[in-house]
Amino acid sequence: MTPRIDPQALRAVAAALADAARVETLRHFRSPALAPDNKAATGFDPVTEADRASERAMRAILADRRPDDAILGEEYGPQPGTSGLTWVLDPIDGTRAYLCGAASWGVLIGVTDAAGPIYGLIDQPWTGERFEGGLGAARMTAPQGDRALSIRRGVALADATLMTTFPEVGTADEGAAFRRVAAQVRLTRYGLDCYAYALLALGQVDLVIEAGLQAYDIVAPMAVVQAAGGIVTDWRGGPAQNGGRVIAAATPALHAAALALLAG
Amino acid sequence: MTPRIDPQALRAVAAALADAARVETLRHFRSPALAPDNKAATGFDPVTEADRASERAMRAILADRRPDDAILGEEYGPQPGTSGLTWVLDPIDGTRAYLCGAASWGVLIGVTDAAGPIYGLIDQPWTGERFEGGLGAARMTAPQGDRALSIRRGVALADATLMTTFPEVGTADEGAAFRRVAAQVRLTRYGLDCYAYALLALGQVDLVIEAGLQAYDIVAPMAVVQAAGGIVTDWRGGPAQNGGRVIAAATPALHAAALALLAG
Repeated sequence: MTPRIDPQALRAVAAALADAARVETLRHFRSPALAPDNKAATGFDPVTEADRASERAMRAILADRRPDDAILGEEYGPQPGTSGLTWVLDPIDGTRAYLCGAASWGVLIGVTDAAGPIYGLIDQPWTGERFEGGLGAARMTAPQGDRALSIRRGVALADATLMTTFPEVGTADEGAAFRRVAAQVRLTRYGLDCYAYALLALGQVDLVIEAGLQAYDIVAPMAVVQAAGGIVTDWRGGPAQNGGRVIAAATPALHAAALALLAG
Repeated sequence: MTPRIDPQALRAVAAALADAARVETLRHFRSPALAPDNKAATGFDPVTEADRASERAMRAILADRRPDDAILGEEYGPQPGTSGLTWVLDPIDGTRAYLCGAASWGVLIGVTDAAGPIYGLIDQPWTGERFEGGLGAARMTAPQGDRALSIRRGVALADATLMTTFPEVGTADEGAAFRRVAAQVRLTRYGLDCYAYALLALGQVDLVIEAGLQAYDIVAPMAVVQAAGGIVTDWRGGPAQNGGRVIAAATPALHAAALALLAG
């Protein structure tokens, strides 16, 4: 079915979710008592009580205000709905940064319909910055002042700034593909999680390339970047909302140049 | 000569410098008009008008309030003094992060006497966090509240968090040494510049390992970490205030374990 959408109402619910998640995440941030659990069989894939409390707080609001919508959340999985809309939640994107006391983690709130992402919100509880795209919005609100989101144009690949979260960037082949792009740009930066997409939407960086993403990692950033005029696809130019290998580019020219390098 | 020091007066001057640098750096932050110059013969070592204006503002205050002290600044070099004290200034530590619109850059203000660093201030203009160590201080001030700086104890190497700025970490040999430590810890994070030392002083991370530093990169962070109870040396356990290869550790046990791995 095609959902009937009230953009203002949906955005108000998203803001309520972000406000609730901000309380829960900041409650535990930099607390010496915060002890991560490890979700990974091998390696370290941390989750904390802050992740869980943040997602529970958002789900409680949705149960009250959007009971017919579906939910996909990182910590508590999928919940079916009947409206045709799905809320895609990452209660803390960047749990590793969160555990280090760094500021780059965020809360991701996305909404999809059958065709893909229609709205995204990236919230940064510690800095107070909130990036919102879709349903008529393309803006950052921050303690220092609000600002329209808009990608920057006219930057050649040789002058571009590239971001990713992990220097390892997925498998060995994925890492090699990433480094082919990194070798051609002016500046490569690491470790910013969802904040990298926010900075692209803000016109500060030109490319974000990642691999191994889940849907809840990318739906909200994708909507924010698209609302700012950018392009988000998989590494072959196809849909990105299911995660995996993702590239976000400010312009079609940068997107095409990076895709060609990723293809080898 | 042994300088006579009034700790409160020196700290007040440092705060005035940080306030002035905050104005100058935020004036240009995320401005589309900000165009970096490249200081490097090969590669990209950016400097901007924000770096220069920030250092000029700090030097003007020192000329007025501390005319007998020496100055060593990244952008305008050394200026001799007669007091025995030297102000060591990095007007923007993390210019690459600054150029990306990321929040991890900071302003570094250190004071040395003949024996080494006696005071350091790490300011984060965008987040409003200020970390101060030495001359009786060991504290963070922030919009969210103040907090005493203190390293965390009792973390084994296998459970430690390690930070550095560049995944490349200096030369090939230096990178290999870094990776020997990274292979033994639980979590390694990249890209945070001076903020990594602030997080160590705040008890959030356990080790920072870097190479290729200058004196103005490390004097202020060194004083902050030491005031919080941590250890900062070069990779052989010697003095770190001249830069080069630097390790900061929360505890003697972690310091010794990491030094052994760095030595190969």
